[in-house]
Amino acid sequence: MKTSILIFDGITALDAVGPYEVLGRPPGWEVEFVGKARGEVRADNGALGLSADKSLDEVERTDILLVPGGKGNRPLLRDEEVLEWVRRLHQGSTWTTSVCTGSLVLGAAGLLEGRRATGHWLYLEHLRDFGAEPVRERWVEDGKLLTAAGVSAGIDMALHLVGREAGPEAAQAVQLAIEYDPNPPFDAGSPEKAPAEIVAALSERS
Amino acid sequence: MKTSILIFDGITALDAVGPYEVLGRPPGWEVEFVGKARGEVRADNGALGLSADKSLDEVERTDILLVPGGKGNRPLLRDEEVLEWVRRLHQGSTWTTSVCTGSLVLGAAGLLEGRRATGHWLYLEHLRDFGAEPVRERWVEDGKLLTAAGVSAGIDMALHLVGREAGPEAAQAVQLAIEYDPNPPFDAGSPEKAPAEIVAALSERS
Repeated sequence: MKTSILIFDGITALDAVGPYEVLGRPPGWEVEFVGKARGEVRADNGALGLSADKSLDEVERTDILLVPGGKGNRPLLRDEEVLEWVRRLHQGSTWTTSVCTGSLVLGAAGLLEGRRATGHWLYLEHLRDFGAEPVRERWVEDGKLLTAAGVSAGIDMALHLVGREAGPEAAQAVQLAIEYDPNPPFDAGSPEKAPAEIVAALSERS
Repeated sequence: MKTSILIFDGITALDAVGPYEVLGRPPGWEVEFVGKARGEVRADNGALGLSADKSLDEVERTDILLVPGGKGNRPLLRDEEVLEWVRRLHQGSTWTTSVCTGSLVLGAAGLLEGRRATGHWLYLEHLRDFGAEPVRERWVEDGKLLTAAGVSAGIDMALHLVGREAGPEAAQAVQLAIEYDPNPPFDAGSPEKAPAEIVAALSERS
């Protein structure tokens, strides 16, 4: 099972690296990082460089396409080279997936018309621009389209995907290997749970 | 507040990128990735390259030192250049932290003698080799030493650290921004919770 993760300047790194850490672990599964060109991309705050080992034209098909989010993906919404590549890989994929605002790219590629989908809570309503029905869930499966909520939700979505493809035991083995027994010291991970003034502050900044 | 994350060939990428995604977000906080030399390191499965923007000798001091884990850190346990760097940064740090088997490197540097510490459940008992008292918790704070359990635990530890230094509101804002409202589809993230045969299989492979 091959996962191809699209990376680009301005990516939110955890959107990509969370699922990578899960989808690279079942026996026989592999992950590749794909950029517009080979070479380094820099994450959204500039402090981290990730390597694209392949360029778009080197990847003709994949089993799992994963499109992460981050401010840097907004130019991709009008980048026909990227959108055409997303459409082409979607045709042959077993799963077409996104994390965070990556669902906007799937939408811009025309893949979410009439589909249920999710993404980062701050940008969820934008999915309507692409004919999608926004859903506030940790991940949303609609046919072979699988979209996750913001940033860290990609880890949960990836475990779900391993469970669907390789069975619950395989997913549990990965979960145990990465000791994913989350215990955040605060309970503010969603706009429904966070203090209202913090939700308001983030909404203003976005 | 500056965080310096040590990276190396064979790192478990999420050990580093999880905390990076948290510690780079509070206003005025920054993260840098440091390698033995500048340039790319490859993660443990070979599929991901991360950029070290600085070499050890370019980093004389930091506020938060973070040492990640991964099979590739075993050679570091006998690498006097790295251990000396860890000791030097620890002298001036506000916090000295690790994720996963990163605590073994802190131990090899002599920093855990008589201290309570944690790490990946599979390697926890090895901490005794360095005079530490292994503790099965998500993270363990002992003075300015802060150690986290396996891989994904670095996210929880980093949120705790932001809370300690910048206050709970700052940590909650980060948690909301990365939508860290975990909802894993299985409940197998610790050896106490995972099916016994899966625990046994991982223990044999390690």
